[in-house]
Amino acid sequence: MTRFRSAADESVGELLETAAERALDDAGVSPAALTSLHVGNAGAEAFNRRSGLQNALAASLGAEAAAADRIENTSASGASAFRRAVQAVESGVSELALVVGAEKMSAASTAAATDVISRIVHEAEYAQGVTLPSYGGLAADAYLRRYDADRAALAQVAVKNHANATENPYAQFRREITVEDVLDSPKVAEPLRLYDCCPTSDGAAAVLLAAEESHPGSDAGIRVAGCESAVGTHAVGERSDPLEIAAVRRAGEGALAAAGQTPDDVDVACIHDAFSILELLELEELGFYDAGEAWRATLDGETALDGPLPVNPGGGLKARGHPLGATGVSQVVELVWQLRGEASGRQVADAEVGLALNVAGFGNNGVCSVLEAR
Amino acid sequence: MTRFRSAADESVGELLETAAERALDDAGVSPAALTSLHVGNAGAEAFNRRSGLQNALAASLGAEAAAADRIENTSASGASAFRRAVQAVESGVSELALVVGAEKMSAASTAAATDVISRIVHEAEYAQGVTLPSYGGLAADAYLRRYDADRAALAQVAVKNHANATENPYAQFRREITVEDVLDSPKVAEPLRLYDCCPTSDGAAAVLLAAEESHPGSDAGIRVAGCESAVGTHAVGERSDPLEIAAVRRAGEGALAAAGQTPDDVDVACIHDAFSILELLELEELGFYDAGEAWRATLDGETALDGPLPVNPGGGLKARGHPLGATGVSQVVELVWQLRGEASGRQVADAEVGLALNVAGFGNNGVCSVLEAR
Repeated sequence: MTRFRSAADESVGELLETAAERALDDAGVSPAALTSLHVGNAGAEAFNRRSGLQNALAASLGAEAAAADRIENTSASGASAFRRAVQAVESGVSELALVVGAEKMSAASTAAATDVISRIVHEAEYAQGVTLPSYGGLAADAYLRRYDADRAALAQVAVKNHANATENPYAQFRREITVEDVLDSPKVAEPLRLYDCCPTSDGAAAVLLAAEESHPGSDAGIRVAGCESAVGTHAVGERSDPLEIAAVRRAGEGALAAAGQTPDDVDVACIHDAFSILELLELEELGFYDAGEAWRATLDGETALDGPLPVNPGGGLKARGHPLGATGVSQVVELVWQLRGEASGRQVADAEVGLALNVAGFGNNGVCSVLEAR
Repeated sequence: MTRFRSAADESVGELLETAAERALDDAGVSPAALTSLHVGNAGAEAFNRRSGLQNALAASLGAEAAAADRIENTSASGASAFRRAVQAVESGVSELALVVGAEKMSAASTAAATDVISRIVHEAEYAQGVTLPSYGGLAADAYLRRYDADRAALAQVAVKNHANATENPYAQFRREITVEDVLDSPKVAEPLRLYDCCPTSDGAAAVLLAAEESHPGSDAGIRVAGCESAVGTHAVGERSDPLEIAAVRRAGEGALAAAGQTPDDVDVACIHDAFSILELLELEELGFYDAGEAWRATLDGETALDGPLPVNPGGGLKARGHPLGATGVSQVVELVWQLRGEASGRQVADAEVGLALNVAGFGNNGVCSVLEAR
């Protein structure tokens, strides 16, 4: 992957190319051998006035015999592209599939970028003034009240993820923050503050997939044991419980079942902390904690790097950054490094099973993957 | 599908919904039974300031247990989404897959729409002032010179496709034109005139896919015998021959081989006539005619509705219209109607094997499908 940044010098096409070349180099594979190319990107038309990134990338790599397309699933575009590549290899349609996710958000003004991102929400709710941060604020408020939870637990999500990112050379923010920093940062949507929210970012990440039998000699390979996607109720106001995210639950159950694993088997997780409250809600939907329990576990350090369930060792969306189309792929990249034991200062001990969760909108679509060391 | 139009009253979301509901009604299937939803769309972010169309559609249909994503492949987005749905069903990942392609281009100004579409071309060539119509003009000029072809043959492509569209209630232009009309229409890119070029359009089309064994009783079902995609050389200036479109040749060869068919077996074809010259070049790349022969065949009426190889019986991109993300799906819809014998006034006699070709950019990516009556 590329280091996620707030304003990259490279174009979105160059970011894609850099990540792709790094993945190919890592695997020792020639681009001419690729049989499919899967680009995850949320909004290059609006952010960069570019279209057909996959065809430009095929040309610049020299992957001219591959099938190519782009997958868009808003903030889960990267994981959806990964899922399509898994499906292509699993079905035998593609022998050697390259997934590359990228976004260059800094090219647009903050107003323009916010406008694009806000249009992800349900039209009727958007018309009422609801944006993604509003959903985050409303959910955080409801969670704190219902479970009498400590506000510091939300801040601790960001504190933990920043601490992890100090050891990740690919992270956008490599500095520690404190609970006080979070609580003193500017208001975004009560009770959420700026440091409860992920940044806008530029960056790209890539993963190469091959059928297991075709590359039996690759010791560095990691097995994709499950990869499932599901939609939920689009309008948050129509959900029977505003703290439930059915898409996440369905995708998580599906991926774990496909892998023959349970939440207890997972050694490390990369989940979608676009807002601090989401990390708590998702940990509960995925079955790692009962409803209303993730906040206390977080305060108790259970999800820290040295806890029983390290969550977001690479810094998460909060501190690694969140270039929309790259995020889902970067989660998989982080898991690969963790499962290979190559994550140096942020290495989770004895990591054999990893889980990645990428979420679209405020949970209208979820994509969950389970990876295993071989 | 919806009738393709120059300026629909409906939003892109409403167009998607209408086409989806028509396909579900046609098959007698409930949206709750869908296991995957594949949206083909080229540029809703830029044209409509919308993102995540697939999740809004899942919600409005009530398909809340499906996996959903959007496929973008510029002007071949519809066929790429179809291909992904075929792959999902073929691999067993999805039991009942709905593909819906849509575009609402009229929502943007002509300048804005042209800007988006132009960015599909290679950046270096775009910087030199080359747009998609320029490529069309350059290729047409080279073709006419190399083969000493009659300019009227290009016009005849549009004349034929307009004549076919008079019998298609879903076509944007339902009136006949003459060779003189084409030659007298405004210049676009020499030698191409306005009537050599497809319009910008609004519309949507949908197809439902299921594994053959799971719906053995459906007499109306049509078999997908092959569906392949390939990229070619992105920059037209880097192609060894500017009249060769390798992506089309590769995709066509792949799809016919998968179907166990040859060009001679094809009874009806829907191919990508964004510019009149493309219909000729593609007929040659697909193996229907030798290089330099398609122009004469067209003048001789071989590709007319009553000829040995009816091409674009629904009117093609020229006269049915070209709402980018809908086009590839609408080609499949037209083939389904033809193979079912439901195309009334434009019915091709004894149609048993159909071929659809959807092309991205000026041939940097091609998607070819072969369908068979059962």
